[in-house]
Formats: sequence, structure tokens, C-alpha cells
Amino acid sequence: MDNMTNIALDAMGGDNAPQAMVKGALDALDHSKDIKIFLVGKKELINKELEQYTYDKTRLEIVHANEVIDTDESPVMAIRKKKDSSLVQGLQLVKDKKVEAFVSSGNTGAVLAGGTFIVGRIKGIDRPALAPLIPTKKGVSLLIDCGANVDAKPSYLVQFAKMGSIYMENVLGIEQPKIGLINIGEEETKGNTLTKETYPLLKEEPIHFVGNVEAREIPSGKADVLVCDAFVGNILLKYTEGLGLTLFGFVKEAIMTNMKSKIGGVLLKKPLKAMAKRFDYTEYGGAPLLGLEGLVVKAHGSADAKVIKNTILQCKKFSNMKINEKIKEKI
Amino acid sequence: MDNMTNIALDAMGGDNAPQAMVKGALDALDHSKDIKIFLVGKKELINKELEQYTYDKTRLEIVHANEVIDTDESPVMAIRKKKDSSLVQGLQLVKDKKVEAFVSSGNTGAVLAGGTFIVGRIKGIDRPALAPLIPTKKGVSLLIDCGANVDAKPSYLVQFAKMGSIYMENVLGIEQPKIGLINIGEEETKGNTLTKETYPLLKEEPIHFVGNVEAREIPSGKADVLVCDAFVGNILLKYTEGLGLTLFGFVKEAIMTNMKSKIGGVLLKKPLKAMAKRFDYTEYGGAPLLGLEGLVVKAHGSADAKVIKNTILQCKKFSNMKINEKIKEKI
Repeated sequence: MDNMTNIALDAMGGDNAPQAMVKGALDALDHSKDIKIFLVGKKELINKELEQYTYDKTRLEIVHANEVIDTDESPVMAIRKKKDSSLVQGLQLVKDKKVEAFVSSGNTGAVLAGGTFIVGRIKGIDRPALAPLIPTKKGVSLLIDCGANVDAKPSYLVQFAKMGSIYMENVLGIEQPKIGLINIGEEETKGNTLTKETYPLLKEEPIHFVGNVEAREIPSGKADVLVCDAFVGNILLKYTEGLGLTLFGFVKEAIMTNMKSKIGGVLLKKPLKAMAKRFDYTEYGGAPLLGLEGLVVKAHGSADAKVIKNTILQCKKFSNMKINEKIKEKI
Repeated sequence: MDNMTNIALDAMGGDNAPQAMVKGALDALDHSKDIKIFLVGKKELINKELEQYTYDKTRLEIVHANEVIDTDESPVMAIRKKKDSSLVQGLQLVKDKKVEAFVSSGNTGAVLAGGTFIVGRIKGIDRPALAPLIPTKKGVSLLIDCGANVDAKPSYLVQFAKMGSIYMENVLGIEQPKIGLINIGEEETKGNTLTKETYPLLKEEPIHFVGNVEAREIPSGKADVLVCDAFVGNILLKYTEGLGLTLFGFVKEAIMTNMKSKIGGVLLKKPLKAMAKRFDYTEYGGAPLLGLEGLVVKAHGSADAKVIKNTILQCKKFSNMKINEKIKEKI
């Protein structure tokens, strides 16, 4: 039992809770024998779901929490007031070192605020950063920060770069991850005050800094880690989603043009579906909140059982690779 | 001749100069009888192109300029040093009121810097803004600013909103254009310092302000005018281009999967091409630099003759609709 990784899961967060959470947890247990999962949420609802399945009861525990934080609640208020929510209880398990990681598909702002207030930062890290993976031609890139640092300082961005590098090297297995600064020109002198001040700092760090990455080049996979403030990060993340949906809509419209194009659509159905999947960033699991004394992962609000399973397995890898120990070493 | 609009064109700027510039100019002359065009650049090169065509010589004039500003030159330095460049000479024609508008596909930074230094701002406008059109499901939206204001103040954004509203109403014919602030949440309290301070100011203005627009909603056409600083604007503009190309690449790959999908691709060729065209923002003509004492329009570096023709016709509309008089009234 030495290798057992304890992972808590917010059974109540997200559009598909608790069904997808319970199913995802059980699938993860099936997939890996050295995981133990703590389902946090309303006992009776979780038990009702669990009744449908057979599973290894020694590796699943329910942690009852009577409240739920809704997606439209004010994050800071909700964290303060709903002490018995699945989110606060789950974060408390990380704080108390009862679990190594906590996964939630709930209110993003509350996960960010709760992670910082309850779990706490690694000493030396100014601000934790939310770092989802986005699809590129070559695979995926880590977009850091998409969290709360909308008015960031150059020193934050340097820390994001270092944490992102460690994460991509150890969790995604990319040797010497290429670190890029998202900017509006290639030259060092281009950009706004933040990027102009950040560039020379990144050059000095023992990371594989490849310079500025213009937005046009993001999908080419020029960098494995894309560093930016959270305003720009959120814009990019959400625009990827919106533009992707729009373009797929355009393709569907093209298919529906006439009888000939409809037949073409039938012939292309399978490869187009495979393509859409490749573009779906929820496939790649959740976004880690890097820089905390423990692992907190935000899964997409629409996460299904498969995403939850992937996210739990990702947590195991994070824990096995001792990411936080490595972050502490380098900061 | 009272209705004649005088428009200058940088014959040397862009990837396809001077061929596309000369052809575009002549196509515009053909299309509209009350335009006169001043081709600015190297006389011998322009004449060599013109030799191939027959056209109304009374409505075309060459303004010789011996130098060319390259796309990779430092904008401010180039403007200062290359006084006899096609760009500086063209802007000087606007300044001297010899033409109502000047179109260039050249160095964007130099167009921005030259526009401000040579043509000059409208009194009351703090900063001119570059405002390209981007494709949406409903048609197009004006993205303002994609120019030089990478560290903008709330008051700049308010002026961008007002100028954008006037432009979309008069040039695109949209009644009461919907003005949106690009942000990372719907609520007034969301965003970074800039957007949080800008929101209440926009509410007070006599424009049709529809609140924050999240990046996910941009392609839906929720707003006709999308207001942001130039860092965010440039990121969005370039990402639209990069992501669009990547997704079309994915579709092509899907088509090449196997024999069945290849046949599907043949059947879908026409509608897919039409779709790609809809997405190509260069189709919509150039981006006006709003807020100057005269009209300066930046066309895409890869603009072909058709884009140049469309841009020239757009200048005519701008002039006819007395946009600058309307901006002066409202500022």
C-alpha cells in the first residue's frame, strides 16, 4: 500500500455531477490498482449512484459534505460561507495531507480562491496559476495562466514559466520543454509593458526559452509552454472554444448545401469526427492549479466520466513524479 | 466633378506590389466613375504595370516616390529617415488635403506611426486606433484597437467605442451598432483593471453598449464593435488567422484519410471553398486607422487586386458618409 495515491473528487461540481463523477472515479479505480478515491459530496446522492456498480470498496470512501457551491456564486463569498461544501471539504483534505490531490469540475473562481486560501501557496510562489492544455498541430501546449492573475507582474510570469516547464517535462514527458512568451511581435522589444519587462527576465532563467510567440503561431506548437497573464490566457482559451465551434458549424453548413455535399459529408463523417475530437481540449484532462502546497485540478464544467477518469490518472502521475518537490527545488 | 473622391494608394507596399496595387486601382476606377486615384511609388515600375492596361487616364495620376519602407524596418526610424518613401509621400498627400484617403499594404507599424505623426489626430482624440473587420456567424465585427495602444487607458477605449460605432453605422450600414467590451466574464465587476474601469464609462455614453463580450461569444456576432486594447486586439486578430489555417489544415487531413474520404472531399470541394472565403478577413477590405485628420487605411500585407479594389471603394464610402465630421461632432 506504500505506492497508494489518495485523490479526492468533488462529486457535486460540474454539469454532469454526480453521475459522471462517480462513473469517472470507478473507471479510474479499475484502470489503476494503486489509487484510492475520496468522493466528496452528499452521501445519499453518491450512494444512489454507486449502487449501480460493483467496485473495490476498500479503495473508495465517501466524505460527506452537505452544501454545494453553484457556478454562478461569488467565489470568495461562497468559500467563506459554505464551509460544508464539497469544494471546501475537498480542499481541506489536501490541506490536511489526507489526499495528494483534489479534482473539481465546479465553480472555477471558487476553485482558484479556495485553492489559495485553504490549501495555501508553496513558499516562494507569489501566485498560483491555472494551466490548461490547448490543442496544437503537434499535440498540446500548456497555457499558463488562465486563472486569477489578470493584472500580472513580470515576476509572476517568470514563476509561471518555471512551473510550466516542470509540469510539461514530468507529467507530459516532454524533454526540455520549449517556453514561449505570448506576444504581438517576435522581437524582444515588442509588446506591452508587461511582456517587454518579462522577456529579459525569462532569458536569464535556466529554462528552454524560445522567445516571443505570436498568436498566429500558437496552433503550430512552436512552444510547449505558453506564458501570459490570465486576462490574455482566458481570452485565448475561450476564443479557441468559440472559434472551434463556429468553424465546425461552418463545415456542417457546407455539408448541408446540397445533395452532392451531403453525400460527401457521409463519406467524411468518421475522419471529421476524429478531427473534432483532436480539437476538444477537455479530452486532455483537467487544468492543474500550479504553485499550491498540494495538487488541485480544475476539470471542465462539462467534463464527462472519461475526462474525470483521465484527470484522476493525471493526478497520480503528478504525485508520482513529485512535481511539487521539483517546483520547490527550482523556486 | 464635385463628387470626385481623391484617393492615394501606396503602389510599393505589400507582398504583391506593385502588380496587385496597379490592377486593384484600375478595377476600382472601372467600378466607380467618381474616384480619382494617385498611385504613389516608383514611376518607372508603376508605368511598366500600367502599360498592360487601358484605363481612364484623366482619373489616374502617378506621384513619384523614390524610396520604399520595408516590412521589417523600425517604423518610427523609417518614417523619419525615408522622407521620399511611397508611405511618407502618400500620408503627406492626406495631410495636405490633396486626397481624402490613403491606402497602404506596407509596414503596419510605419502606417500607424506615420498616420499619427504626419496626418495628425482629430482634436479631442487621444490615440488613433486601427480597426479591422473580423468574420462572425452573422457577418463581420469591428475589432478596435489592433494598432499601437498596447497599454491603453479607459478613456482611450471609450473613444474607440464611439469611433467604432460611427464607422459601423455609416460605412457598414448597421443601425445602432451593438458595442461590446471584450472581457473574461459577463458581469460588470469582472476583468482586469482596464476593463473594470472602462465598463462604467461606456455605460454613460450615448452608444448602444451591450456590456462585456467573452471571447467565446465573439464569433457569434454578439457585438458589432468589439472594444479592447491593442495587445488583446492583435492577439485575437492573429489567433483568428492561425487557428483558422490550422482547422482548415485538419479538414484537409481528414479528407486525405482514405479513398472514401477523398471522394467525400471532392463532393464537398465547392461549399468548403465558399466557407474558407467567408472566413478570410482580407476579403472585407482594409482596416481604417480611425481618429486621424483624414482617412488612412491599412490593407493586409498579402492583399490582392480584389482586396485593394474593395478597400478603395470603402474609402469612397467613408468620405461620402463624412465619417470624420461625425467623429468630430461626437467627441
